[in-house]
Amino acid sequence: MISRNALNFSGGPGALPETVLAQVEAAIKEVPEVGLSILGISHRSDWFAAVVEETENNIRTLLGLSQDFHILFLQGGATQQFSMVPMTLLRGQKHAAEYLDTGYWSSKVVTEARREGPVKVLWSGESCGFNRLPSDGELDFSPDAPYLHYVSNETVEGLQFQRVVGRDDVPRVCDMSSDFLSKPCDANKFSVIYAHAQKNIGPAGVTIVLVHDTVVKASSDELPTFLNYRRQVESHSNLNTPPVFAIYVVLLVTRWLLNDVGGLENMAQTNRHKTELLYAMLDNSDGFYKGWSSKEDRSQMNVAFKLPDETLEQKFLAESHEAGFSGLAGHRAIGGIRASIYNALSLPAAEKLTNFMDDFLRHNRK
Amino acid sequence: MISRNALNFSGGPGALPETVLAQVEAAIKEVPEVGLSILGISHRSDWFAAVVEETENNIRTLLGLSQDFHILFLQGGATQQFSMVPMTLLRGQKHAAEYLDTGYWSSKVVTEARREGPVKVLWSGESCGFNRLPSDGELDFSPDAPYLHYVSNETVEGLQFQRVVGRDDVPRVCDMSSDFLSKPCDANKFSVIYAHAQKNIGPAGVTIVLVHDTVVKASSDELPTFLNYRRQVESHSNLNTPPVFAIYVVLLVTRWLLNDVGGLENMAQTNRHKTELLYAMLDNSDGFYKGWSSKEDRSQMNVAFKLPDETLEQKFLAESHEAGFSGLAGHRAIGGIRASIYNALSLPAAEKLTNFMDDFLRHNRK
Repeated sequence: MISRNALNFSGGPGALPETVLAQVEAAIKEVPEVGLSILGISHRSDWFAAVVEETENNIRTLLGLSQDFHILFLQGGATQQFSMVPMTLLRGQKHAAEYLDTGYWSSKVVTEARREGPVKVLWSGESCGFNRLPSDGELDFSPDAPYLHYVSNETVEGLQFQRVVGRDDVPRVCDMSSDFLSKPCDANKFSVIYAHAQKNIGPAGVTIVLVHDTVVKASSDELPTFLNYRRQVESHSNLNTPPVFAIYVVLLVTRWLLNDVGGLENMAQTNRHKTELLYAMLDNSDGFYKGWSSKEDRSQMNVAFKLPDETLEQKFLAESHEAGFSGLAGHRAIGGIRASIYNALSLPAAEKLTNFMDDFLRHNRK
Repeated sequence: MISRNALNFSGGPGALPETVLAQVEAAIKEVPEVGLSILGISHRSDWFAAVVEETENNIRTLLGLSQDFHILFLQGGATQQFSMVPMTLLRGQKHAAEYLDTGYWSSKVVTEARREGPVKVLWSGESCGFNRLPSDGELDFSPDAPYLHYVSNETVEGLQFQRVVGRDDVPRVCDMSSDFLSKPCDANKFSVIYAHAQKNIGPAGVTIVLVHDTVVKASSDELPTFLNYRRQVESHSNLNTPPVFAIYVVLLVTRWLLNDVGGLENMAQTNRHKTELLYAMLDNSDGFYKGWSSKEDRSQMNVAFKLPDETLEQKFLAESHEAGFSGLAGHRAIGGIRASIYNALSLPAAEKLTNFMDDFLRHNRK
């Protein structure tokens, strides 16, 4: 019997590992080594400083991240980073920062960046309905751009870059909100990586930001303190009261990744197995399940697809809910169905969904 | 036997009511009406929309708040509001906004405001070592100020305004982080009230902002979306993923205030009883326990005091910890001892501390 939590295919906030949930539940009553509820522990305590330090170290270990990076735990979601990055690197610049517009989330990032300085959209998926990503041949990067920004995985459309793009002599900034710590990544090739927690690494309410030291040094003291990377680094993410609970859950998830999963290679392998099942179901359905994205850009995190008509989609959602699955409705921007299979979603859960889809197909194919 | 959670006198994040903690613990496993962990429920679900609506309604009922106010649940702590307020009301203004500098937190607010426009510190407690608040006679408000800002309760020094200050024809903005929902308040006399949750109303990670409609209308679309009150109002605090968990806990606390406590009059009465015990202990200790603030400005939330010397203070902290108390160290800015007695701290807990102090006094008086 798989629990409803374990069958949560939501686009986020999504499932967390069952062992993490059990530890969180215990910590609401009492964090063993402190004797207090996790909700009542001071952010200035030695215990919490150790939580932040261990979480940083775990992320550094998982990614093989160089000491040139600072790791921050901030509030405001990825959305706050949409602004913090250009506030730091784009204000007052003559040359345009380059942005890739690859889907729903990219478009939002571009809107916020334009408030801060000149932006060039180097490539947009708009004309192809955001169903594919650009090839290298389509991208003509300028060496003068203050930075390149892109979104590594588009959750709505289910598109994922399988490579690092951009020039090595131009800072790369990446929104990895939806695939951070889901697979190994060449993190050291970036200048800023940010990811809100609520996909693979924790609850909504904390955003992990990896900032290269050169970016930290570029921070301006004219910015409000909380939007100043340097001030956040100097205070060890404790400028004002941080979201203690959310950071603690991230710690537990990083421990799970290191100790239970055994690192990001293993995590990636499981994630690949899960999507192979689901994409094979799409590919072998004679067009009954129609994938949104082109095959070569398919996401290992979000499998977005359509059924022959909306009535069938509603039926699919109702019956899948009845069968114990949650969160399978597509994003309101494009509709359809979306199975988000973040780290905590197990292979048996993906198998169960595949079986359900197979069953549904056999009963509803015309 | 009183649990360690119930004896958490921390300046924040502090204690939460035991009945709330029990409900939170259950919700980590499964929110009954959803069948999923609170950490895995979508912020776009009908269930979460109902959570936000009920929490808003509860706050409105508790305060008797008029429909001219919008209630927001934002991230970034009170610190984000230090900037959002002047970004909205001060940028481009000729006349200075007036700020009262009454303690540790006020000073931080002033620093952030100065980045956005002209600020006049109307009164400062610096010369008296921040041990008292201004009388009405000391405050000469200008009718031309874009707004007046003050902090209703200074947690570090333990100073609390027992009245609403300012002119009725100038917008009042108040940081009520440490006494929000601890007593009735003339909320309708303000234009903006903000309060982070981690004192009286929930865990760190969410800030409640009450914004009068005139302020919402003054919001500029030149601001980043997440710093624009109007955009936050239009999205019902769901512009990007809000801190679902923290907001849910705030809902539970507002239910506790309404149903278990029976409203803010009752809450204020209990809070008064708690501080009467503690301040009486200070006053009857022949100067052994020396209160920080002048009697007439004493806080009902934070009782800050000194012992005859630091060695005794260290002894007090060690022995109180041994006896099951937590969080009694004074703020690092001024040292000494601080008993924070927020809503969730019960009268029996305050009695227990008073008894401990009495005992300690008898054993350590010279």
